[in-house]
Amino acid sequence: MAEEQSKANAAATATASVGNEDQVVNPWEVSAKEGGKIDYDKLIEKFGCQRLDQSLVSRVERLTSRPAHVFIRRGVFFAHRDFNEILDVYEKGEKFYLYTGRGPSSEALHLGHLVPFMFTKYLQDAFKVPLVIQLTDDEKCMWKNLSIEESRRLARENAKDIIACGFDITRTFIFADFDYVGGAFYQNMVRVAKCVTFNKVVGIFGFTHEDHIGKIGFPPVQAVPSFPSSFPHLFSGNDNLRCLIPCAIDQGESGKMSASDPNSAIYVTDTPKDIKNKVNRYAFSGGKDTIEQHRKYGANLEVDIPVKYLGFFLEDDDELEHIKKEYGDGRMLTGEVKKRLIEVLSELVSRHQKARQAVTDEMVDAFMAVRPLPYMFC
Amino acid sequence: MAEEQSKANAAATATASVGNEDQVVNPWEVSAKEGGKIDYDKLIEKFGCQRLDQSLVSRVERLTSRPAHVFIRRGVFFAHRDFNEILDVYEKGEKFYLYTGRGPSSEALHLGHLVPFMFTKYLQDAFKVPLVIQLTDDEKCMWKNLSIEESRRLARENAKDIIACGFDITRTFIFADFDYVGGAFYQNMVRVAKCVTFNKVVGIFGFTHEDHIGKIGFPPVQAVPSFPSSFPHLFSGNDNLRCLIPCAIDQGESGKMSASDPNSAIYVTDTPKDIKNKVNRYAFSGGKDTIEQHRKYGANLEVDIPVKYLGFFLEDDDELEHIKKEYGDGRMLTGEVKKRLIEVLSELVSRHQKARQAVTDEMVDAFMAVRPLPYMFC
Repeated sequence: MAEEQSKANAAATATASVGNEDQVVNPWEVSAKEGGKIDYDKLIEKFGCQRLDQSLVSRVERLTSRPAHVFIRRGVFFAHRDFNEILDVYEKGEKFYLYTGRGPSSEALHLGHLVPFMFTKYLQDAFKVPLVIQLTDDEKCMWKNLSIEESRRLARENAKDIIACGFDITRTFIFADFDYVGGAFYQNMVRVAKCVTFNKVVGIFGFTHEDHIGKIGFPPVQAVPSFPSSFPHLFSGNDNLRCLIPCAIDQGESGKMSASDPNSAIYVTDTPKDIKNKVNRYAFSGGKDTIEQHRKYGANLEVDIPVKYLGFFLEDDDELEHIKKEYGDGRMLTGEVKKRLIEVLSELVSRHQKARQAVTDEMVDAFMAVRPLPYMFC
Repeated sequence: MAEEQSKANAAATATASVGNEDQVVNPWEVSAKEGGKIDYDKLIEKFGCQRLDQSLVSRVERLTSRPAHVFIRRGVFFAHRDFNEILDVYEKGEKFYLYTGRGPSSEALHLGHLVPFMFTKYLQDAFKVPLVIQLTDDEKCMWKNLSIEESRRLARENAKDIIACGFDITRTFIFADFDYVGGAFYQNMVRVAKCVTFNKVVGIFGFTHEDHIGKIGFPPVQAVPSFPSSFPHLFSGNDNLRCLIPCAIDQGESGKMSASDPNSAIYVTDTPKDIKNKVNRYAFSGGKDTIEQHRKYGANLEVDIPVKYLGFFLEDDDELEHIKKEYGDGRMLTGEVKKRLIEVLSELVSRHQKARQAVTDEMVDAFMAVRPLPYMFC
């Protein structure tokens, strides 16, 4: 979670690449050496972030008068930049806005793609603040070599899944670059572009001389939504409004049952049977090989995928603790834990499917209309 | 004069740089070794153009049923690319559109800046075709480090001078990038950008690693007006319409009385007294040092600046020939030629000033309104 002040350079470094001998994290790749785990402490240090610690979680709960989302209580969102400063001014009665987005490269989202949106919805509801959601159809057209027509179609399809997450239309503006770039937004793109040399983007993103100039010139497009003046219909005269950007470094990981097998991802279009098969077939178990051994030694929760996913998606803290204890002590079996996970995921996906079915083209138009949002801070 | 088909690569090379040991011609610099003259034959060869020869001039006159403009009759516009093809389809009843533009970096234009617009007006009137005029306020903001506000202001000021050239509002759409970039135009920018690598723009424009990404990503902005789909309000459903681009390589030269002295430029804001002083002080004469020598040997017309400028701006062919003959043979003196040039320029500038004074802000708005032009081909 990174907060951007209205400075072009800050924006340009928000997605800075971290590469060393052990792990690579950049906008296109997240990998650790020999299938190892990402070292988040190292990431926090390299990106110049701070840990989202317990005192900050408590402060959020105090300021919003509601329990913090499981994603921060349980460390799914684990780091931030200057979030404390946003809370300082929020405490004094000054609001902020949220910015998140998606590159629409595929028809169906998997669960990992939903995570930042679920978290953003919580932030919007808890802080009662406006939200802008950027669909970078231009990016996917340039990186994935999709046609403009196909990128734009996917943007609208993805918008339906995003709207299905329950965002409040009185506080939410969704825009696709191919429609919205221009005017104040384009002017800010030029302002940012003037501050960033080719050398700088090579350092940050690793571009080469054979990369096309669309890629090289693209970073400002994703930087400028962090400046309120890019949205004159929303924030005119409010140029110092701060922006909070919830973002993920590894949506991929949290969507799949097995990091190494892309078929193991659970999509929001999956049937309960699909979900059951994927969890049973792919979710690596920390339980022991025989019931006798398991009863004796218990499960290794550190490597257990079903427990990890319950940590993401089972909201009941007590039940989660109960499962961890019973399973870790060997009284509960892998099959029972997987059964509960299948229930939780099936319910989540089925709820999403119902919500998405209710999203009409007119609703997409309404969310994407360039319009003022008079009640966005109420 | 270069015609662009709807191909991204063709557009990208339209402003290709030519540099060798003798002369440099690129979008920002026109210079020949040791103050020498530009070798236009070499330019034509390097840029892959054809000479705009007498047979083509005659063809234009036949097709438009009017005398060709002095700028092509006298070789001011000296080269073209595929102009013949445009005339082939024009002859069959198919129209085309014109595209020209200006980077609004200064308040007042000098005469050299007017030349392409005067020529474009002739083309519009003669062929009865629509015209799009791009004001690259974004370019000047990035290259000249002007603020966005100042660039936009200059764009509107320059639009007034352009409108004063007499363009037909029923066939002319003027746009400034900071206002117009977006939608179909931006989509075409992405299409072009995908076709151009960093190596390619380095080869064409000489960018370095320390140039900012705004410059590196800019070429598509000037390429896409050559595609009709960038103007859906004008050319919707007319994607194969051809585009003719009148352009100058050395507006600078034709605006100044002395190539080496920037103060010698005649501005459209100059008074008759300014013009008189500049012509008398700076315009290099090909006449001889004494009247006796002059009467005996005559003037060297090749190096004579007043004769060169009469060639640009004195419309009467007979009078121009008369002056050249009398002056070249020594019967006419430099003072007399300069006097005639001062008259011609003063009249031109005074006419421009009157026309510009009549251009209101409402007229600028009208020319720049994004609107259909139902009579643009009539």
